[in-house]
Amino acid sequence: MGTCTNHPERETSYICMKHNVYLCEECLQCRDPKLYCKFRESCPIWFMSRKKAGLDAEPASEAAVETLPAHTVTFGSDGQAQTVSVSTGTTLLEAARQAGVHINASCNGKGACGKCKLIVTSGEADAPDTPLLTEAEKHKGYVLACQSNVTGDIRVRIPEDARQRKLKVAGMGQEATNRLKGLVTEPEPMLREIPLILDPPTLADAVSDLDRLKRGLKKANCDIDRLNVSLDVMRQLAATVREESWKITVSVVQRKCSNEILAVRPGNNAPRSLGLAVDIGTTSIVVYLVDMAKGTILAAASGHNRQAACGDDVINRMVCAEKSGVKKLSRLALVTINNLVAEALDSAGASGDQVKNVVLSGNTTMAHLLLEIEPRYIRREPYIPTATEFPIFKAGDIGLAANPMAAVFVMPGPASYVGGDIVAGLLYTGLHRESPLTLFIDVGTNGEIVLGNQDWMMTAACSAGPAFEGGGIRWGMRAEDGAIEKVTIDPATLEPDITTVGGQPPRGICGSGMIDLMAELLDAGIIDRSGHFHTEREHPRITAINDEPAYVLAFADQTPMAEDIIFTESDVKNLIYSKGAVYSGFTTLLNEAGLDFSMVERMVITGGFGQYLNIEKAIYIGLLPDMERSRFAYLGNSSIVGAYMALLSDRYRKEAQAICNNMTYIDFSSNPRYMDEFTSALFLPHTNLDMFPSVVDRDNTRAVAN
Amino acid sequence: MGTCTNHPERETSYICMKHNVYLCEECLQCRDPKLYCKFRESCPIWFMSRKKAGLDAEPASEAAVETLPAHTVTFGSDGQAQTVSVSTGTTLLEAARQAGVHINASCNGKGACGKCKLIVTSGEADAPDTPLLTEAEKHKGYVLACQSNVTGDIRVRIPEDARQRKLKVAGMGQEATNRLKGLVTEPEPMLREIPLILDPPTLADAVSDLDRLKRGLKKANCDIDRLNVSLDVMRQLAATVREESWKITVSVVQRKCSNEILAVRPGNNAPRSLGLAVDIGTTSIVVYLVDMAKGTILAAASGHNRQAACGDDVINRMVCAEKSGVKKLSRLALVTINNLVAEALDSAGASGDQVKNVVLSGNTTMAHLLLEIEPRYIRREPYIPTATEFPIFKAGDIGLAANPMAAVFVMPGPASYVGGDIVAGLLYTGLHRESPLTLFIDVGTNGEIVLGNQDWMMTAACSAGPAFEGGGIRWGMRAEDGAIEKVTIDPATLEPDITTVGGQPPRGICGSGMIDLMAELLDAGIIDRSGHFHTEREHPRITAINDEPAYVLAFADQTPMAEDIIFTESDVKNLIYSKGAVYSGFTTLLNEAGLDFSMVERMVITGGFGQYLNIEKAIYIGLLPDMERSRFAYLGNSSIVGAYMALLSDRYRKEAQAICNNMTYIDFSSNPRYMDEFTSALFLPHTNLDMFPSVVDRDNTRAVAN
Repeated sequence: MGTCTNHPERETSYICMKHNVYLCEECLQCRDPKLYCKFRESCPIWFMSRKKAGLDAEPASEAAVETLPAHTVTFGSDGQAQTVSVSTGTTLLEAARQAGVHINASCNGKGACGKCKLIVTSGEADAPDTPLLTEAEKHKGYVLACQSNVTGDIRVRIPEDARQRKLKVAGMGQEATNRLKGLVTEPEPMLREIPLILDPPTLADAVSDLDRLKRGLKKANCDIDRLNVSLDVMRQLAATVREESWKITVSVVQRKCSNEILAVRPGNNAPRSLGLAVDIGTTSIVVYLVDMAKGTILAAASGHNRQAACGDDVINRMVCAEKSGVKKLSRLALVTINNLVAEALDSAGASGDQVKNVVLSGNTTMAHLLLEIEPRYIRREPYIPTATEFPIFKAGDIGLAANPMAAVFVMPGPASYVGGDIVAGLLYTGLHRESPLTLFIDVGTNGEIVLGNQDWMMTAACSAGPAFEGGGIRWGMRAEDGAIEKVTIDPATLEPDITTVGGQPPRGICGSGMIDLMAELLDAGIIDRSGHFHTEREHPRITAINDEPAYVLAFADQTPMAEDIIFTESDVKNLIYSKGAVYSGFTTLLNEAGLDFSMVERMVITGGFGQYLNIEKAIYIGLLPDMERSRFAYLGNSSIVGAYMALLSDRYRKEAQAICNNMTYIDFSSNPRYMDEFTSALFLPHTNLDMFPSVVDRDNTRAVAN
Repeated sequence: MGTCTNHPERETSYICMKHNVYLCEECLQCRDPKLYCKFRESCPIWFMSRKKAGLDAEPASEAAVETLPAHTVTFGSDGQAQTVSVSTGTTLLEAARQAGVHINASCNGKGACGKCKLIVTSGEADAPDTPLLTEAEKHKGYVLACQSNVTGDIRVRIPEDARQRKLKVAGMGQEATNRLKGLVTEPEPMLREIPLILDPPTLADAVSDLDRLKRGLKKANCDIDRLNVSLDVMRQLAATVREESWKITVSVVQRKCSNEILAVRPGNNAPRSLGLAVDIGTTSIVVYLVDMAKGTILAAASGHNRQAACGDDVINRMVCAEKSGVKKLSRLALVTINNLVAEALDSAGASGDQVKNVVLSGNTTMAHLLLEIEPRYIRREPYIPTATEFPIFKAGDIGLAANPMAAVFVMPGPASYVGGDIVAGLLYTGLHRESPLTLFIDVGTNGEIVLGNQDWMMTAACSAGPAFEGGGIRWGMRAEDGAIEKVTIDPATLEPDITTVGGQPPRGICGSGMIDLMAELLDAGIIDRSGHFHTEREHPRITAINDEPAYVLAFADQTPMAEDIIFTESDVKNLIYSKGAVYSGFTTLLNEAGLDFSMVERMVITGGFGQYLNIEKAIYIGLLPDMERSRFAYLGNSSIVGAYMALLSDRYRKEAQAICNNMTYIDFSSNPRYMDEFTSALFLPHTNLDMFPSVVDRDNTRAVAN
């Protein structure tokens, strides 16, 4: 119970959930917006409820509730239900956001992706007909959350595949430490804790406390020529140095163009110093918690970027930022990161205050959004970011759950669509340090390509789309538990043999699984080189959905959703677009450099395909070029490893900047050659089969054998 | 009327003056400290009154007032009275501070200086007998505020000479501008406002907004290699650069080891840019308001440093800071400065927001106190300051009434007792730039000496004491209106001929007047070489006060106080100590350098003697060495001029730092030679007359003539 914000004399148990203030029944019933809530300017239509406040034992009087222009939406079953009241016309997606319930919404609520499926278990919603739902789904009560308006009280269930699961990230903990062993020998944090014992002053040595401190730092090999000190530190210095008889510990951050004394404490007991390497992917975020003294990874955690509620790709995120404010997107990323940090700290038995160094690695849009920097010109020609390199920030200024004075290095990136995550990846691959001509590709939600070696580098981005991460594919999903990651199809029986992540019952298919599947469908003659199904062939696995041919990868009785996992002709088309975008990126970039694949000595693939990538099959469908197989290397998530390296080494931080300065960015959006190459690549493997001699050989061999 | 803080149901008009809360009569009368005031932990003995609240028309009921452990102290006459209630035992000095009434208190309330005289006009105070008051004064009701405890209601008047007056500073406004003309040709502010017109981005020129901005700055000759940018600036940058089609104005501050973009605004209309040069003297503070484009002085203002309420010299200020907190002293200096700044801005028709550059020049203690940096170790052996040089601060961080982002340069100083004001003075004299061997002396509240030239410099401080600024001298005062600044005495009649500042009736005597007077008293045979009065001589001008001989400089009927202005044997002694301290400083420092006066090619005198200094007479009493007269130059306040130079010129700011680095500090407190030299200098002019041949010559010539 509390006092009404408009009528302080009245006790009430109704609360405005948005502004957390009490309101009496008169205010609730009144149509005068001035009486809704004292924050009325921003709250003319907000609903009131006492349910969520958890304050009252007795239910709200029916009379009062009925007069509200609001309906109750309940998500989930009784045991774990979450309820929210919304006004008429609110979409179920918006209601879910208000209730803090996460639903995948790749297209940010445009009704285009069909991911935000809900099952209505009681009540009704006003939902238009949509081709994104099958008749069977509609019959079972499926609706799209973004297209369904609330018209009365309603209870919905979230189907398995619209929920999010915890990502599995390869190479966590001890395994990761072993993998990264030797990358950094002597840790060089940005923020150092330097214990000093100063000589007490005498008449013969009467320099100021600050000069004495600097003398001590110089002896400890700290560069004092460009040393800044804040007024706060100076104000306390005289007392601090004398508190434990000239024994002190100094926190010094090393910046690009100057160092700064951030704090001075009495005594020589430097606490444990921890660091965080963070890979901010558009889809998922990975955190490594690192012991800064030894370089060991104490804990790792990963999870979905909560910004996903605002769209699957960077374009949709920027649109959302323009509509709802950059701050909202920043908060969503921060909440994700801070939760992962808390999880890692918890499992390592450490506290956030011990974290004094942080490296953030993400694409240019992710960096802008996290730092709350206006991103809107990144998506408008001529595609200009605010910044591609960043000063060392303080964690407290950004809102990271670390020591507020922790030094934060944001990986620089050369362009709007080639960001810090790519530079981090290069740090790991060493492309810029070695002489072999290397082609680097990172396939995440976007595809970024780098070509070069220690002497020169060119880079470009191609809109591969989110297909390889599950976006735009009916049963596409990320490489989580239950994702089909390997597929073979018996050409005789057309029966598939599948392997799933974690050996769980199949829930969908991830990037590596799709590449396998495409190659196998082609190899088994189920689809042709243009991606069309051979529908004349009759087989239980070959079916049709809404008149569209499809292959059944797993029947309903094998899946936890009790639904067929199918791969449609549209899915094939989407994947052909994606692989075509990547392959034409290779050829266009090589052409810009006056080179061809024969000159490429090494091909490094990183990204979100999954834990394994079948190079042979990726070549077979024309995603990767037909080069000698030994030249290929698949490295998984290289961005987090590069972040880890920069966290521990000043040399790598400087290298990151040097990579940006030495890289030439080629803009494909204005490159007519790229469109030509793209069109030629929309075949399996390619319209020009001369580029894939091993595929031709193999097909010929098999044709002869048959 | 208001509600009692302890009993909200009760209306009352009594108020706790310390915490500005209402209290009812019960709380006032109750002896339980918990009921005094809700902030009782810090307020067990605070008094209550409704007088000052200015709320009520009717007087407080007698009953309520009588139960208070408090008495009313009224300062001044009815027209301008200020009243305060204090508890029994409070000193009148403390009561004055509480009432916001300023009284000079050179010794910070120790009962040593005798400056804080008050005249009791009604009521009584508990005051012990003191030799600092004459019988005549005691008869007239004079008491020392710091020694008098309040025992009942009392009304006091502040005599003329315990009040402060506005200082006159030589060389204000146009006069100063003319004097300073040519010192700086091309202004180089620390904070520059740079208007830029950037090339709009294209696909072929798609660098980030920040890189585009840096390119523009580089074209404008700004060093961008060590350029910092804050997150706030980055967050707004994309919108700002586009608001007026890539026309912007950038605020860049140039620091010692890096530059920083502080702000970016749309458009090219740079507003007027102003600067402040501030001389923070222990006694008085001077402010110049400068047009940063042309270097002209738009206005000047000066006033007494309000810290004077906490003692006349730096030692007493530090004692006060230790007792009452550094913050209090900082606030007092800030209030003084900010009031002077407001005055200067007002007369120039400018606003504080236009002030973007500031230079502060003061001794080491003044700098520490203003910046709220702990000064307590400056006064304890081995005399260690927290810092002798300072980074460029922001005005907002310090609390200066300028644009919050204005760059503040604090003049560096080489040691605890040789500070930034001396370095500023050297900037003006050019000692460090030129080849002639120069002896520089600044006599303010302390005496600082520098010996050297462009190749080397030595410096030392001698405790000259505040005598030359009026401290410790019965009728001593600063060079304000009514101060006797020139004196001659007819050797035949012993009648004086005096000149006062502003031609006003004499109120006291300032430094230059005292030097004249000492020389004339000696020359007329009124005192001997050891400073004793020839009391056998009978003359109306030669009198005695409390059995101490004295010379009457002005009779009561000539003075506005209707009292004799006298100069006692104690005053003579004090002045001999002061001049001895300075002279022995010269000889000790020369000795340390292995030099003597004959090698000194130039002697520069600066400080607070007054507007004029009679070199001949200063030599005659042994304050200055007996060198060729053409080698002497008296420069007045050189600290403010040096501050002005550093405000406009980066070269001078760098020179200031170089001066500190090249200066060797000699500590006299541990130098046995200094004590010997001091003892020898306690004669007029000196025990060793060989050092003053011209004085001997003159006396011989006159002896022959007689």
